[in-house]
Amino acid sequence: MSLIHEMIRTYPDDLGAVDREALAECIAACTECAEACTACADACLAEPGVAELRRCIGLNLDCADICVATAAILGRHTEADLEARRMILEVCQAICRKCAEECEQHASMHEHCRVCAEACRRCEAACAALLETL
Amino acid sequence: MSLIHEMIRTYPDDLGAVDREALAECIAACTECAEACTACADACLAEPGVAELRRCIGLNLDCADICVATAAILGRHTEADLEARRMILEVCQAICRKCAEECEQHASMHEHCRVCAEACRRCEAACAALLETL
Amino acid sequence: MSLIHEMIRTYPDDLGAVDREALAECIAACTECAEACTACADACLAEPGVAELRRCIGLNLDCADICVATAAILGRHTEADLEARRMILEVCQAICRKCAEECEQHASMHEHCRVCAEACRRCEAACAALLETL
Amino acid sequence: MSLIHEMIRTYPDDLGAVDREALAECIAACTECAEACTACADACLAEPGVAELRRCIGLNLDCADICVATAAILGRHTEADLEARRMILEVCQAICRKCAEECEQHASMHEHCRVCAEACRRCEAACAALLETL
Repeated sequence: MSLIHEMIRTYPDDLGAVDREALAECIAACTECAEACTACADACLAEPGVAELRRCIGLNLDCADICVATAAILGRHTEADLEARRMILEVCQAICRKCAEECEQHASMHEHCRVCAEACRRCEAACAALLETL
Repeated sequence: MSLIHEMIRTYPDDLGAVDREALAECIAACTECAEACTACADACLAEPGVAELRRCIGLNLDCADICVATAAILGRHTEADLEARRMILEVCQAICRKCAEECEQHASMHEHCRVCAEACRRCEAACAALLETL
Repeated sequence: MSLIHEMIRTYPDDLGAVDREALAECIAACTECAEACTACADACLAEPGVAELRRCIGLNLDCADICVATAAILGRHTEADLEARRMILEVCQAICRKCAEECEQHASMHEHCRVCAEACRRCEAACAALLETL
Repeated sequence: MSLIHEMIRTYPDDLGAVDREALAECIAACTECAEACTACADACLAEPGVAELRRCIGLNLDCADICVATAAILGRHTEADLEARRMILEVCQAICRKCAEECEQHASMHEHCRVCAEACRRCEAACAALLETL
């Protein structure tokens, strides 16, 4: 069992009707996407053609910020506001899609963009899947 | 001139049609709101009646996370994605309103909730004002 | 291969003499520790005896903040400052130890503290292991 | 009175012997330094000579991460661990100095680096001043 699953399992109060599997998947996907975006921004910065990667770096940094915030918010359940969770999930899904679309344009040139795009797509899908259960 | 104004002024590229005053106000309001929410969650935790303040603490922590992310995103202009900015501003505005509504219920009992509610209302208004210009 | 390993592998420039295995382990451990601490603070807040868990919540929140910052910093390699990395790793190691010591005192009562203490100890060890290679 | 002063004033428990003025100054300086560093990294990215500013961008991002974490930690007082605060303040002081030294090398060329270096120096001094009182 992953650490995220264990923390959800040991939560002392009622989690309500939330789908624990979708929740754990989404927290894991947000965390991985944040790591990928932080590393991709840095890898783009190291490229000789950094000047062509400005939009990619900017979206990477935005996406990392949103994913870190989303993971933290989803990790809290005590009297959690469902509407707020829905809104942040929709934003996270949208920014991950934007970042994926940008990274995909450089994926054939830059391996780090290819890997990062995949992490963004997984996070986009995990947000969508969790949203369907809320 | 505030530091935020100075950083906007010294940005080397074209900022486009963005309203610099509304942008600076919003970054400042997000930052102050994050500080107020972090401190209010901690002050609630120190109250003898902490058990009645669980929802307030949870919303404070969510609001702080969103405001920190929003301030960082608004501080970046290079090939910034306008649609992403609009979405994060709408979420920030909504979470600030929720957090303000909760803190206002405790404002007559707890000074820290009164001050925090004011910071959330200022941030809600600053997000709305910036959204109108985008 | 984990995502973190893939992002390290696809970094386009020279990583120097850094031990990639220790680096990947440490980033993963920081991320997991941040998740555990965020969730443990929230679980403590939901406990009937929240008033006795104030120090635990405070250390959880501090530890999560440090671990998120450390993971982000370790995810960047471009002209990275080695001395800065050593300093942040030492702080992260120390805060993880403090948080583990506190959570261990509640581990027999609260499963979430037991799981969180283990995540903190893994992160403490991962920081120490990476420090030895720098 | 600034918002930070108000939040410190309304804290419901005993703050002990902490110098409230030095504490408020340091939180404000960390917050401003994080904003300056976020904006300076982005401004460097927009420069035609971005390739020469890689180390500056990297230190800006590290410094912003540390300053955000430090401001959050200093905003919490409930059963706060003094030793942990000292350690994070020492790291914050050191990273601000490193970032200032780098930005100062570009200050005559780039106004954003000049303004950012000043914010880093203020934060370095505010951390040192608070450390002297702890």
